[in-house]
Amino acid sequence: MPVRPLTIGEVEQAAEAALPPETWDFVSGGSDAEVTLRANRAAFDRIALTPRVLTGVTAPDTSARLAGTDSTLPMAVAPIAYHRLYHPDGELAVARAAKTLGVPLTVATLSSHRLEDIAAVGGPLWFQLYWLRDRGQIVDLLRRAEALDFRCVMLTVDCPPYGRRLRDVRNGFRLPHDVVAANLADPHRHVARAGEPGAASAIASHTDAIMHPALSWRDVAWVRENTRLPLVLKGVLDPRDAVLAVEHGADAVVVSNHGGRQFDGAPAGVAALPAVAEAVAGRCELLVDGGVRHGTDVLKALALGADGVLLGRPVMWGLATDGERGVETVLTILREEFTHALALTGCAGPAAARDLRVTHVREDRPC
Amino acid sequence: MPVRPLTIGEVEQAAEAALPPETWDFVSGGSDAEVTLRANRAAFDRIALTPRVLTGVTAPDTSARLAGTDSTLPMAVAPIAYHRLYHPDGELAVARAAKTLGVPLTVATLSSHRLEDIAAVGGPLWFQLYWLRDRGQIVDLLRRAEALDFRCVMLTVDCPPYGRRLRDVRNGFRLPHDVVAANLADPHRHVARAGEPGAASAIASHTDAIMHPALSWRDVAWVRENTRLPLVLKGVLDPRDAVLAVEHGADAVVVSNHGGRQFDGAPAGVAALPAVAEAVAGRCELLVDGGVRHGTDVLKALALGADGVLLGRPVMWGLATDGERGVETVLTILREEFTHALALTGCAGPAAARDLRVTHVREDRPC
Amino acid sequence: MPVRPLTIGEVEQAAEAALPPETWDFVSGGSDAEVTLRANRAAFDRIALTPRVLTGVTAPDTSARLAGTDSTLPMAVAPIAYHRLYHPDGELAVARAAKTLGVPLTVATLSSHRLEDIAAVGGPLWFQLYWLRDRGQIVDLLRRAEALDFRCVMLTVDCPPYGRRLRDVRNGFRLPHDVVAANLADPHRHVARAGEPGAASAIASHTDAIMHPALSWRDVAWVRENTRLPLVLKGVLDPRDAVLAVEHGADAVVVSNHGGRQFDGAPAGVAALPAVAEAVAGRCELLVDGGVRHGTDVLKALALGADGVLLGRPVMWGLATDGERGVETVLTILREEFTHALALTGCAGPAAARDLRVTHVREDRPC
Amino acid sequence: MPVRPLTIGEVEQAAEAALPPETWDFVSGGSDAEVTLRANRAAFDRIALTPRVLTGVTAPDTSARLAGTDSTLPMAVAPIAYHRLYHPDGELAVARAAKTLGVPLTVATLSSHRLEDIAAVGGPLWFQLYWLRDRGQIVDLLRRAEALDFRCVMLTVDCPPYGRRLRDVRNGFRLPHDVVAANLADPHRHVARAGEPGAASAIASHTDAIMHPALSWRDVAWVRENTRLPLVLKGVLDPRDAVLAVEHGADAVVVSNHGGRQFDGAPAGVAALPAVAEAVAGRCELLVDGGVRHGTDVLKALALGADGVLLGRPVMWGLATDGERGVETVLTILREEFTHALALTGCAGPAAARDLRVTHVREDRPC
Ligand SMILES: Cc1cc2nc3c(=O)[nH]c(=O)nc-3n(C[C@H](O)[C@H](O)[C@H](O)COP(=O)(O)O)c2cc1C
Ligand SMILES: Cc1cc2nc3c(=O)[nH]c(=O)nc-3n(C[C@H](O)[C@H](O)[C@H](O)COP(=O)(O)O)c2cc1C
Ligand SMILES: Cc1cc2nc3c(=O)[nH]c(=O)nc-3n(C[C@H](O)[C@H](O)[C@H](O)COP(=O)(O)O)c2cc1C
Ligand SMILES: Cc1cc2nc3c(=O)[nH]c(=O)nc-3n(C[C@H](O)[C@H](O)[C@H](O)COP(=O)(O)O)c2cc1C
Repeated sequence: MPVRPLTIGEVEQAAEAALPPETWDFVSGGSDAEVTLRANRAAFDRIALTPRVLTGVTAPDTSARLAGTDSTLPMAVAPIAYHRLYHPDGELAVARAAKTLGVPLTVATLSSHRLEDIAAVGGPLWFQLYWLRDRGQIVDLLRRAEALDFRCVMLTVDCPPYGRRLRDVRNGFRLPHDVVAANLADPHRHVARAGEPGAASAIASHTDAIMHPALSWRDVAWVRENTRLPLVLKGVLDPRDAVLAVEHGADAVVVSNHGGRQFDGAPAGVAALPAVAEAVAGRCELLVDGGVRHGTDVLKALALGADGVLLGRPVMWGLATDGERGVETVLTILREEFTHALALTGCAGPAAARDLRVTHVREDRPC
Repeated sequence: MPVRPLTIGEVEQAAEAALPPETWDFVSGGSDAEVTLRANRAAFDRIALTPRVLTGVTAPDTSARLAGTDSTLPMAVAPIAYHRLYHPDGELAVARAAKTLGVPLTVATLSSHRLEDIAAVGGPLWFQLYWLRDRGQIVDLLRRAEALDFRCVMLTVDCPPYGRRLRDVRNGFRLPHDVVAANLADPHRHVARAGEPGAASAIASHTDAIMHPALSWRDVAWVRENTRLPLVLKGVLDPRDAVLAVEHGADAVVVSNHGGRQFDGAPAGVAALPAVAEAVAGRCELLVDGGVRHGTDVLKALALGADGVLLGRPVMWGLATDGERGVETVLTILREEFTHALALTGCAGPAAARDLRVTHVREDRPC
Repeated sequence: MPVRPLTIGEVEQAAEAALPPETWDFVSGGSDAEVTLRANRAAFDRIALTPRVLTGVTAPDTSARLAGTDSTLPMAVAPIAYHRLYHPDGELAVARAAKTLGVPLTVATLSSHRLEDIAAVGGPLWFQLYWLRDRGQIVDLLRRAEALDFRCVMLTVDCPPYGRRLRDVRNGFRLPHDVVAANLADPHRHVARAGEPGAASAIASHTDAIMHPALSWRDVAWVRENTRLPLVLKGVLDPRDAVLAVEHGADAVVVSNHGGRQFDGAPAGVAALPAVAEAVAGRCELLVDGGVRHGTDVLKALALGADGVLLGRPVMWGLATDGERGVETVLTILREEFTHALALTGCAGPAAARDLRVTHVREDRPC
Repeated sequence: MPVRPLTIGEVEQAAEAALPPETWDFVSGGSDAEVTLRANRAAFDRIALTPRVLTGVTAPDTSARLAGTDSTLPMAVAPIAYHRLYHPDGELAVARAAKTLGVPLTVATLSSHRLEDIAAVGGPLWFQLYWLRDRGQIVDLLRRAEALDFRCVMLTVDCPPYGRRLRDVRNGFRLPHDVVAANLADPHRHVARAGEPGAASAIASHTDAIMHPALSWRDVAWVRENTRLPLVLKGVLDPRDAVLAVEHGADAVVVSNHGGRQFDGAPAGVAALPAVAEAVAGRCELLVDGGVRHGTDVLKALALGADGVLLGRPVMWGLATDGERGVETVLTILREEFTHALALTGCAGPAAARDLRVTHVREDRPC
């Protein structure tokens, strides 16, 4: 990538060229037939927003407050396991870029650098919690996150079980030996078992081994009681669950299908969003993710009721192409596109997007 | 197929490679322009199910009771004529695999092994009845099925007349000499007349020759009176007919277009299902078939009101690739996918699926 | 075509191979971008009919009474100019085949054999009237049609002006010298002016030259008063016009966009049909045409409110491939398909189709 | 183009062949992923109009009064910057052709000939105003336009900021030295800065440099007070803004997304039109643009509530292929197609189009 890329699509292509094929498959693929993965993109492409004119807006204020954290943009980096798969600097590089841009980074339970090392970088951080079998380890993680000034706990509720990622199974995908679950104690630190083509992937086996198979609202209540940080539930799609989240004290929910990696057949996050927004009626914050690839997608999410979005794969693509600088490029592209989109639609800031008229484009081809 | 296939699609490809082209065409094709055949698949792809989270479900109970038979899964093998076309062990292999997996097998009037030999295998069996011209033969079949402990009679009501399968006509398709209608007495046992390219296929002629052309509700009443087994009507798509089925004492109906092999222009079974479910309002059981190729499809059928599904071609593809073991593979894939789908959507079992939120994915491509 | 074709599609392909390219373009093309031409087919493909079962129907009665004429099928041959373009026997061959099958043939004002010669064949005939500039010639044609026992007058109301058929303009298409407007007196008999590529086609110029540019309801009233034959208006799409047709004494209207050859942007006939049927509410007969290529299409038209359909291009394709025998083949295919469709949907005859449940198939492809 | 082209599509192809690739990209491209650019065309293709018959119309009267100007057609040439990019005669050639055909030409603030020279040609002219940073220059332009008998002021309200045209950025597109903003005083006259691939295009930089970034309803009020000419606002899509336009004294609004060159994600103009038409309820005139490529598109716009359309790229394509004569060809094609469309739908003139029945064609392809 000698010339600075203009679009996330260009970064994506560069990442595909830069990564070993099975790593590319791991990061970019989805579960089963990848119907939901494709639906995530298609849902954004179908939405049309009607610009307002003559609002006198020149330099829109893009800043937002998400889950109690100030951000320069209504965006945060989604939790993604094992950043070191894409670049030796892993989460450290991403944390630096996120800090530079001023957006929160969600550090995954399965991060490949330790929370402590990532926190040392100094930007706003969120902590993503997987519901481990070992309750003591959960407590340990929460305490460390609080001590390190993480700003919220994002409990992922749509996993396990781990979705069937057929590409990984076919590739017999497994982690290189130097990529580990850095926050966990041995023996859970190492994703040792080699994947064999056709069997469950090594990562799937590891995930299922360390994570508690049954997660319930009772556990949410327990988390709520055991941390003073704002609580975010990630992976909610049904409006009834969003209401339950409110009732269990969640400060925010992430409307998400886990990037099309869990239940293949789930609706796109952005397609599920309006019903969720109607049901919660402002009683908690709403983030959405899956398929955000352009600043205009962010605006669409806001127009449909979200307070912000999470960015998944694009950040890893940037990391794969150029480490910290690649992530900066990705976030800068999205910032510029989003700022431009606000200006072109006459919005003074994220809040104004809620008032945009939303319709659906149909792009039937005549022949 | 040295490596165990991961998806039904892989089994399908292996079957296409393993079978003579005209046999492949016979089993996989549909009638006329195959619009309904394609609609069966497209209907499933368009449906999105919204997962529930935090239900605390770990190991879902997949068992179901279908037409009075206990099954480990809300699935049964659909009636398919002449299994020996695909493997010398024919219905015996399929019966063994179905027994291993614990799902009912529907044995066709036109099975290529005798009811007695199939029953000797020992799994749960259903008997599919075609309305033969010879009423005595019908009585004989019913008595044998009852004596052999078949658990229900499934009367197929969407045939004759036989659909126009153009591939078979073009191929001049006919049965090999060692594949016969094993349950029928001579001369109906042999599908002798050779097909000539361009004329009606040999199987079509035979079917029309042995089957009574006019089947009416009066005949249903006669069957109802002449057997003590649960009665299932297969091939109902119109809600008004489903209500008539209830009124004529049917225990279940199969919402089906015969796998796209009869009226080309009929809706997909799963598309017709909601209106049927609304009309019968629980007064009889509902099975659906046509295009089920993934455990998630089963879940979609349940969410739309079915109690279970029938599996057609995938079972024959498994049979063609590896006999009993191939059928086991197919049923195992579907069991794993279905169990996984229940877990990923937070369903404790088939009944919970009825409560899932159903929407429709549109996958327009932008360019 | 050594083997008898199985579908109209096969006849179409054979006709394309048999005809000079510019003649093929003339008969098969539409106006402008051919959006409406394609819409005619797409509209049929989108419709699903739900079969009824157990109605006890065996041999459906396909006969119908259309515009006062008994027909063995709810079909008639549409008016098409200059049959001799496709075969030297022209309208005589078509009339013989239509007679054999027992369906009415609509003879065009611009037929390439004289009404008298066609009538000599002896089948049921309808007369299509173009609104000529020369009122005397109209009177002459009506008198001859009545004398020759034509059964109705079908006044075409959607032409002139002649649609812009770009293929013909590009081809500089013109009639061979031996194909003439046989019913007209000199100088209108000869379509002499050579077309030059890029200019209006020779046929367009001739048509515009002989036909009166302004046709109004007053003229319809005049025709109604000047013939004792049933009056059919061909080319009605708007429900308000259909009501006006009833009020002006029309016995039937043909819901038609002239095979996609006039206003490109018009809806498919079968798409316009339901609103027309609702508006006329049985006060006149409804025929529909455009894109009928299968017996099932006929059934769909009936289910949506038509009493019968007109068959256009398929008849010419048959004529092009094998003269009288080719037309017989086309009509026989459609008869068999239609009879089969009735049986497969449990309809005792055309009237029962009105009661079939109609839905719309969507065949989105997932990838 | 030796033979006169038959369709705008043919002119488009000829223009692509005639222009340097980066000039072609500049004129034909849109912003970002060009979703809105494609939506403009798709929206027209989806609309079906139902013709009326027997209205007795022969020679429709195509004339219209648009923004107080008499036009022979309900069409005007859209404001397009720098016509000299496509032909040395630039705006002079277009003005001559527009005069010949009798349709208004909107001269852009950024025209590459001076208002005075264009006005000397003598046809009906409109003046498009960009909201320059230099208020004195705005006053100067308004005074000149009034003095030169321009008939209206069309204030473009959807720019700045300038849309991101990625093709231009990639091409490093910049104006040749002899193409200047002829109406502006130095230093704004010259679009000097060379574009570098990957940076903002030279035209974008120039535009952003000269134009005031904040345009508000207050400025509209100022324009309204500072000119006696009819005021048209171009670039309105939201019905609420259309109502505000009425309240601020606009005589007309142009429902437009700037040819898909500004906010990518905006609906097609013709898709936004019905809601706008309902909101303004006749209180001001409505023009629409974007994707008009056929006379039938014009009719569709009228049927949906527009009083007329603006023609953008097709005029430049004509200019590129053959200067004045090429523009004449384009306008003549559209005139002939539109006249023909009126006749084929039974409309005596533009006003009658409002009464046509509008439906939507879906052209799903079955396989
Ligand atoms: C490679 C990869 C790893 C992921 N790891 C996690 C994880 O550890 N925890 C989690 O909650 N979500 C995880 N996700 C899901 C993301 O947080 C996010 O929901 C998703 O990537 C958003 O979709 P997008 O990639 O289309 O932007 C992962 C996603 C990917 C692609
Ligand atoms: C080769 C073949 C033979 C069939 N034979 C019968 C039969 O004898 N009786 C019957 O009721 N249905 C028969 N069917 C229909 C199936 O029972 C079932 O409705 C259909 O296959 C379901 O669709 P699927 O194949 O897409 O799963 C047959 C289907 C196929 C493909
Ligand atoms: C080559 C050709 C010539 C036609 N000539 C006439 C005609 O003379 N008079 C008329 O009313 N319709 C004419 N039509 C229209 C047909 O009557 C009919 O409306 C149309 O062909 C039906 O569509 P289909 O061809 O898709 O079945 C013609 C159509 C074609 C294709
Ligand atoms: C090359 C080009 C330059 C344009 N310049 C201007 C302009 O200076 N001012 C303006 O208001 N609109 C401008 N437009 C937008 C047009 O006025 C019009 O809205 C658009 O081209 C209509 O879409 P169409 O090209 O699909 O017909 C420009 C469009 C193009 C393609």
